[in-house]
Amino acid sequence: MTYCVGMMLEKGIVMMSDTRTNSGVDNISVFRKMFQWSDTDRIIAVMTAGNLATTQAVVSKLEERNKAPEDREPSILKCTTMFQVANLVGELLRATIEERQMSVDGQAGGPRFSASLIVAGQIAGMEPRLFLIYPEGNFIEASADTPFFQIGETKYGRPIIIRGYDRTMSFEDGVKLLMVSMDSTLAANLSVGMPLDVLVLERDRFDPLHERRIMASDPYFQEISSSWSDALRTAFHSLPDYSFNDRDESVG
Amino acid sequence: MTYCVGMMLEKGIVMMSDTRTNSGVDNISVFRKMFQWSDTDRIIAVMTAGNLATTQAVVSKLEERNKAPEDREPSILKCTTMFQVANLVGELLRATIEERQMSVDGQAGGPRFSASLIVAGQIAGMEPRLFLIYPEGNFIEASADTPFFQIGETKYGRPIIIRGYDRTMSFEDGVKLLMVSMDSTLAANLSVGMPLDVLVLERDRFDPLHERRIMASDPYFQEISSSWSDALRTAFHSLPDYSFNDRDESVG
Repeated sequence: MTYCVGMMLEKGIVMMSDTRTNSGVDNISVFRKMFQWSDTDRIIAVMTAGNLATTQAVVSKLEERNKAPEDREPSILKCTTMFQVANLVGELLRATIEERQMSVDGQAGGPRFSASLIVAGQIAGMEPRLFLIYPEGNFIEASADTPFFQIGETKYGRPIIIRGYDRTMSFEDGVKLLMVSMDSTLAANLSVGMPLDVLVLERDRFDPLHERRIMASDPYFQEISSSWSDALRTAFHSLPDYSFNDRDESVG
Repeated sequence: MTYCVGMMLEKGIVMMSDTRTNSGVDNISVFRKMFQWSDTDRIIAVMTAGNLATTQAVVSKLEERNKAPEDREPSILKCTTMFQVANLVGELLRATIEERQMSVDGQAGGPRFSASLIVAGQIAGMEPRLFLIYPEGNFIEASADTPFFQIGETKYGRPIIIRGYDRTMSFEDGVKLLMVSMDSTLAANLSVGMPLDVLVLERDRFDPLHERRIMASDPYFQEISSSWSDALRTAFHSLPDYSFNDRDESVG
């Protein structure tokens, strides 16, 4: 599977993705699922989940790799708004899935080529924006009420984001929060795996503020992973104790 | 959906289930998903997830409700081992699903009648045992390596059980742990809902040590729910801070 999260903060956007792809549990590989394009007036990042051939095709098309390098003028760098970017990416995704799906139509129980994407970025003079793109090509945008999107194996890592998120948090805390969320997911689903890619987009800055690949051997990640178990246990024991007896009074 | 957990401790077994059933999000009801039978030499409890008509039919058959009350001699109270109990319940489940499924066979995209069960209990002179019963009628048993089973919406509440579980913990801590796990699930999935049913089976005791329905208004549950958010945030902030800069040295 996959786990990617994009999270909107007051200061900008924090993104994290794993790199494991699998076709069965006996066939795993490492592939990057985070991509970015930038120019003097914009930065755009995409994270991918779902069928790898589909998502690679979408990214290749975004980069116009069918053309000779000198002829490429990615239209993602020409869109005038992030809404147009989301539309462009969504349409490419929908068309890519449809084309492949039609080619195997009628094969009962045949493969599925579905995928979902997270698109984040900012174009100069406008706000940073964060979108979740569905396989059908339509999309939703993050808001103050729902300031983060997850794709892939979203459930294990969701409770801590819901509880830990604060719009005013620092980028460093944002990265830490997504690491904890990622760690819970890694512990529960074998098809999500290290290394991780991290990208931080600061508001009104059109190159990445921070970008890193976190390896399994990374000492900070290992420390987070082990301290989090202890911190959770401490948190659990700090809760008021349940009692069999005096509770009877409060139950009708 | 549903969320039920059964957890084996050194001292016995702790079980918790929600009570929400839904047929679409616009049609929710409250139904008990935890059932028990006991005699002088045994106590047996079952929790259910999946199609409600299926699970109610299985429970009714276990109670032999097709017979007049005075003729009922539930075979679940005659099995000589918990393995036999699991077998009996599994076979009833499989047959109930199969019968219903056959009756609609050929209806493309027709309804599914699947269900899963957790069976827990002890028969005098033997160990307490905990089983997860699949729709196919087969089952697996909990062990020291995997001491708990979840059915229904299992993912949101899993990380805290993995981290908080300790075989030697008190029953009270066990109930608290499952409440926290349940709270994370309730916060994320509308199809899991209050009230909760709690049951504690103490080793070598053939009536429930503790049994309670926890209402949404329960002050202890409300306290757990609100303190857990704070405790998680405190835990999160107790972790070492991420830094953009000095981390560069440790990355190749």
